[in-house]
Amino acid sequence: MSYQPGTTGVVVQNIERVDQAIIDGLAACGVATVHEAQGRRGLLAAYMRPIYPGARIAGSAVTILAPPADNWMLHVAIEQVQPGDILLLGTITPSDAGYFGDLLATSAMARGCRGLIIDGGVRDVRDLTLMGFPVWSKAVHAQGTIKATLGSVSVPVVCADALVNPGDVVVADDDGVCVVRREEAAEVLEKARAREANEEAKRARFEAGELGLDMYQMRDELAAMGLKYV
Amino acid sequence: MSYQPGTTGVVVQNIERVDQAIIDGLAACGVATVHEAQGRRGLLAAYMRPIYPGARIAGSAVTILAPPADNWMLHVAIEQVQPGDILLLGTITPSDAGYFGDLLATSAMARGCRGLIIDGGVRDVRDLTLMGFPVWSKAVHAQGTIKATLGSVSVPVVCADALVNPGDVVVADDDGVCVVRREEAAEVLEKARAREANEEAKRARFEAGELGLDMYQMRDELAAMGLKYV
Amino acid sequence: MSYQPGTTGVVVQNIERVDQAIIDGLAACGVATVHEAQGRRGLLAAYMRPIYPGARIAGSAVTILAPPADNWMLHVAIEQVQPGDILLLGTITPSDAGYFGDLLATSAMARGCRGLIIDGGVRDVRDLTLMGFPVWSKAVHAQGTIKATLGSVSVPVVCADALVNPGDVVVADDDGVCVVRREEAAEVLEKARAREANEEAKRARFEAGELGLDMYQMRDELAAMGLKYV
Amino acid sequence: MSYQPGTTGVVVQNIERVDQAIIDGLAACGVATVHEAQGRRGLLAAYMRPIYPGARIAGSAVTILAPPADNWMLHVAIEQVQPGDILLLGTITPSDAGYFGDLLATSAMARGCRGLIIDGGVRDVRDLTLMGFPVWSKAVHAQGTIKATLGSVSVPVVCADALVNPGDVVVADDDGVCVVRREEAAEVLEKARAREANEEAKRARFEAGELGLDMYQMRDELAAMGLKYV
Amino acid sequence: MSYQPGTTGVVVQNIERVDQAIIDGLAACGVATVHEAQGRRGLLAAYMRPIYPGARIAGSAVTILAPPADNWMLHVAIEQVQPGDILLLGTITPSDAGYFGDLLATSAMARGCRGLIIDGGVRDVRDLTLMGFPVWSKAVHAQGTIKATLGSVSVPVVCADALVNPGDVVVADDDGVCVVRREEAAEVLEKARAREANEEAKRARFEAGELGLDMYQMRDELAAMGLKYV
Amino acid sequence: MSYQPGTTGVVVQNIERVDQAIIDGLAACGVATVHEAQGRRGLLAAYMRPIYPGARIAGSAVTILAPPADNWMLHVAIEQVQPGDILLLGTITPSDAGYFGDLLATSAMARGCRGLIIDGGVRDVRDLTLMGFPVWSKAVHAQGTIKATLGSVSVPVVCADALVNPGDVVVADDDGVCVVRREEAAEVLEKARAREANEEAKRARFEAGELGLDMYQMRDELAAMGLKYV
Repeated sequence: MSYQPGTTGVVVQNIERVDQAIIDGLAACGVATVHEAQGRRGLLAAYMRPIYPGARIAGSAVTILAPPADNWMLHVAIEQVQPGDILLLGTITPSDAGYFGDLLATSAMARGCRGLIIDGGVRDVRDLTLMGFPVWSKAVHAQGTIKATLGSVSVPVVCADALVNPGDVVVADDDGVCVVRREEAAEVLEKARAREANEEAKRARFEAGELGLDMYQMRDELAAMGLKYV
Repeated sequence: MSYQPGTTGVVVQNIERVDQAIIDGLAACGVATVHEAQGRRGLLAAYMRPIYPGARIAGSAVTILAPPADNWMLHVAIEQVQPGDILLLGTITPSDAGYFGDLLATSAMARGCRGLIIDGGVRDVRDLTLMGFPVWSKAVHAQGTIKATLGSVSVPVVCADALVNPGDVVVADDDGVCVVRREEAAEVLEKARAREANEEAKRARFEAGELGLDMYQMRDELAAMGLKYV
Repeated sequence: MSYQPGTTGVVVQNIERVDQAIIDGLAACGVATVHEAQGRRGLLAAYMRPIYPGARIAGSAVTILAPPADNWMLHVAIEQVQPGDILLLGTITPSDAGYFGDLLATSAMARGCRGLIIDGGVRDVRDLTLMGFPVWSKAVHAQGTIKATLGSVSVPVVCADALVNPGDVVVADDDGVCVVRREEAAEVLEKARAREANEEAKRARFEAGELGLDMYQMRDELAAMGLKYV
Repeated sequence: MSYQPGTTGVVVQNIERVDQAIIDGLAACGVATVHEAQGRRGLLAAYMRPIYPGARIAGSAVTILAPPADNWMLHVAIEQVQPGDILLLGTITPSDAGYFGDLLATSAMARGCRGLIIDGGVRDVRDLTLMGFPVWSKAVHAQGTIKATLGSVSVPVVCADALVNPGDVVVADDDGVCVVRREEAAEVLEKARAREANEEAKRARFEAGELGLDMYQMRDELAAMGLKYV
Repeated sequence: MSYQPGTTGVVVQNIERVDQAIIDGLAACGVATVHEAQGRRGLLAAYMRPIYPGARIAGSAVTILAPPADNWMLHVAIEQVQPGDILLLGTITPSDAGYFGDLLATSAMARGCRGLIIDGGVRDVRDLTLMGFPVWSKAVHAQGTIKATLGSVSVPVVCADALVNPGDVVVADDDGVCVVRREEAAEVLEKARAREANEEAKRARFEAGELGLDMYQMRDELAAMGLKYV
Repeated sequence: MSYQPGTTGVVVQNIERVDQAIIDGLAACGVATVHEAQGRRGLLAAYMRPIYPGARIAGSAVTILAPPADNWMLHVAIEQVQPGDILLLGTITPSDAGYFGDLLATSAMARGCRGLIIDGGVRDVRDLTLMGFPVWSKAVHAQGTIKATLGSVSVPVVCADALVNPGDVVVADDDGVCVVRREEAAEVLEKARAREANEEAKRARFEAGELGLDMYQMRDELAAMGLKYV
């Protein structure tokens, strides 16, 4: 992809996507595990919160660069959505206006969209909850937006402190949002599953009362660092 | 109303209210629709959040101007509540102390109060949730308040960045809070209902897969602005 | 206790605890009542929010002083937990990294820990919710932490603007978190129960429609202060 | 004035102003004194900070209601400025974009404008400092704005939590910004000057070492409240 | 000291102070060096900022616990000030009201007070700057305060996330504020001076172009950690 | 550059830089003009503020990806600095610890470094001011950092909401910080100078009293939009 983050006035129509089985595998692992599996990279800022608890999704990012309080590019982006995709919107300058509501969600769902990640505001959250369309956002705010200035669709965008390329895999759950590079998705899934298997064994030992101090053999290192029991 | 926002030491006893059918109509439309119907005016700041999800109310505002961390005027205001009213509190200087809890809610409910909008803190939120008394607030905080300084009741107040006059209609749901001028309430309801009818038709077309780009005929304007598909 | 808040490299093994019946009594009273009963002291900052609604717990504090984004001391602390205790973590400098997740929760629950109060971030909140392990935190964030620097366990710590000593009783519910000094716990419970009994009587009078203005005989004082009804 | 705060699409051309001598008197008293003299009303939020220290101004408010990140109405407003006026801008929804820079300042100064109060962002602050054009703002930010949507000029606006009417007197210094109702300006000046005279006498006594405890005769009241010296 | 943080209604009259030469030595070292010298403890939160640049002070803390927006205890505290002391105010619940202005500063200076640390607001900052009375605060705000509720003087207080005991040494400069336990002040000064001497030597080597990588012999450890130069 | 933002454990040694004359030209234009000249892209978040007013610099970015509260990579990066470069640090997860002080500044200046942009904290700001080493940061904080975890040097980093590649030109002044892509720097400078020339002409017309309404011929469009003068 030859576009720089911040490029306006462009819609990239053909983006590469990761195999759906890999995407669904990442969704099943969840944000914390995927984040760890790829070396603690890719987390969006902690202010990105779900509008309702319990959703856990993954999908290919259709990215949107939007001017402040201007949701024109969302209409442009929805045409680019393929089933299983996730819309992800970053803004040129911060805004918490309500870019997205139940009508746009209806349109996005009709295209097979799995959810929205927006570094801005969302509204109609009661309807979105009833529709089962999950959104992770910086704010809930009813403030209307305009359609006056161009942004871009499917170019790299900075969203909530993270760079996201079109076609990157976005994973989102109650812990927040994590992005996985398209080229690394298969490898990250493998590592995430290995991590899960490893954690399963540890969980059983913790349940049986074993301490992390012993399981991870920390006592000697702590003593060497100078930790004193009094 | 001849009082300026910020006036202290006054309780206005006779305020005009909007017809209850209009108020209930506005409640049914919800915050986002009402906000749009009146020309995108009247929203309170996005930091005003409900203590539990799902409530949607409207009522005539009994306004309260309160000193920081001083809830004396809430007792004065409850006497002024008529069935269907909503208490709305703005502070002289910011405070997130817990002005309101289950005892005051019991008293307010006994007068027919439908809820509280408070640019400050609230406490006993578990009890308020069980009682079904909805509150939109800046904070949840148990910190107690005092009764030492006068404020006012039923004068204009600035609450979460919006000016609210006594008798204005307050609409609140999961999207936040919106205020409608008393004199404009009937007209705003009419416009809100027209908007809802219009949206209903659009929703069906979106569900059928039609794009906003076509429904709103945006393609030519976007091209004229220079949007490029690559 | 002769350690200063901020002391690092120490694990205090024997701390005194309050009688369990007193602790459970304080849990039943809840944060707002306990806070009032002890003279409006002991509240943690309002930014400490539960990861799910409805939990109400109390327990003896096993305190943790942790470096930023370093969760080593949590492993050390879990060994010090006795059934009914609550882990409480303050940081040396602010951090919203995800210090605690489902594995540590499994280990803590195996020791009888009732919950966690953390002036930092938590992750795996979906799992923690399903496990019924309540956490009050400054942030939800998946960001992993390291194990590189010593802190301390069971020394006095400042957590969310409040000083907490090991063995102090921590009470937490939807209103936030309140700390009760170990030496004062019995007396505070007595006062809290008296307050509850008193509130019960008031609640019935409020339900019957009596006003706070009359119940608390405020009318004369308000008039003396200059409050005008117009 | 018959317009409501939030009204868009209107420029009110004839506004009443306070006598210049009164305005200059209020400037000399400063924000803290004026705020106290009018009963602790009229302060804007504490986040409004000057771009450079030391300026102290007052003037009649030419108010601006602006859409987010849209500075069109500033051009409209400058035509309405008379020598000695202050531009004051509130936004429909929050924005920290850079609405105002050195070119607009040049234009405003050519009309005799004394400064700008803006609940948004400002840029070119180095040039503004060199030009001696003071600004109190929510943010310094270079982000450019557009000219796409109407706001209003010289209607009531909410700016940084305060309601300001066109023609109200705005006082600003290093302590922040305070607004005085046009109708009350003369009376507030009188009270502010009385307060200053009173403070002058107190200052001399404080310099001589007298304590506030004695000057204000607080000792008995403190003892009656229960204050204990140990 | 047998009082708990949060205790109200008490003025402790006799507090122990550190020798003035030690205090002045700590002032000369500055906040960053003192903070490091005592093991990276004692810093107040980063939001505490000076009202003007360039001041560097140290003094014995006369602590104040104040109710929100209530500055009564400041008058009580000033009587307790001895030459060279610093007033330090923490609040029971957060407040950014303007607790302190030029009259109180005049009174404090007459007692030999060197400055104020306040986890709240300050006003008259132009006058305070001209008077050369330095203040580190959470906010600059003109909002007036009341005198209605007791706090305490010279008891332990939590101020901007740090616990401060009366008589502890407070050091403040453009980097913020750091507190040194009274009992440890002499030892901390010794370590701070050793650190300064050590830094002086390093500074000369850095000026001569030597790299930290070589001076601290980091290259091998970095390579062992896996750092790759490409 | 084939590294993704977020890559750890890598130091890229050979980065391409822009011709020094172009860099110095961009510095002379300043942040607001450069930002406009490149289509309103490239601004860092508004929270990035200079530690002292008046500095205006530009330079090639030597980028640093740093773990929270860990400044190890700064030592690594300084070796990569060439005369005229600017250090720019983004963090893996947010931190306001004091990563940088006067010793590191001494080392950086010895290598010809022009300044530091840091999405974190800085300390010793009094010394840095006296040394004339400008820093734009998220916080001033004395909190010490550790050296325990690898980051990277001269890979793409997200810093204060913007993506910065090594060798991009960073421009910084009192308005904040703006990044210019290396490949576009010459073209942006040309546009920025054209913009400056254009502004010079406008400035003279504004000074002569001409209004923006006339200069930009806005009156007809405003009327067409429905603006009413009353």
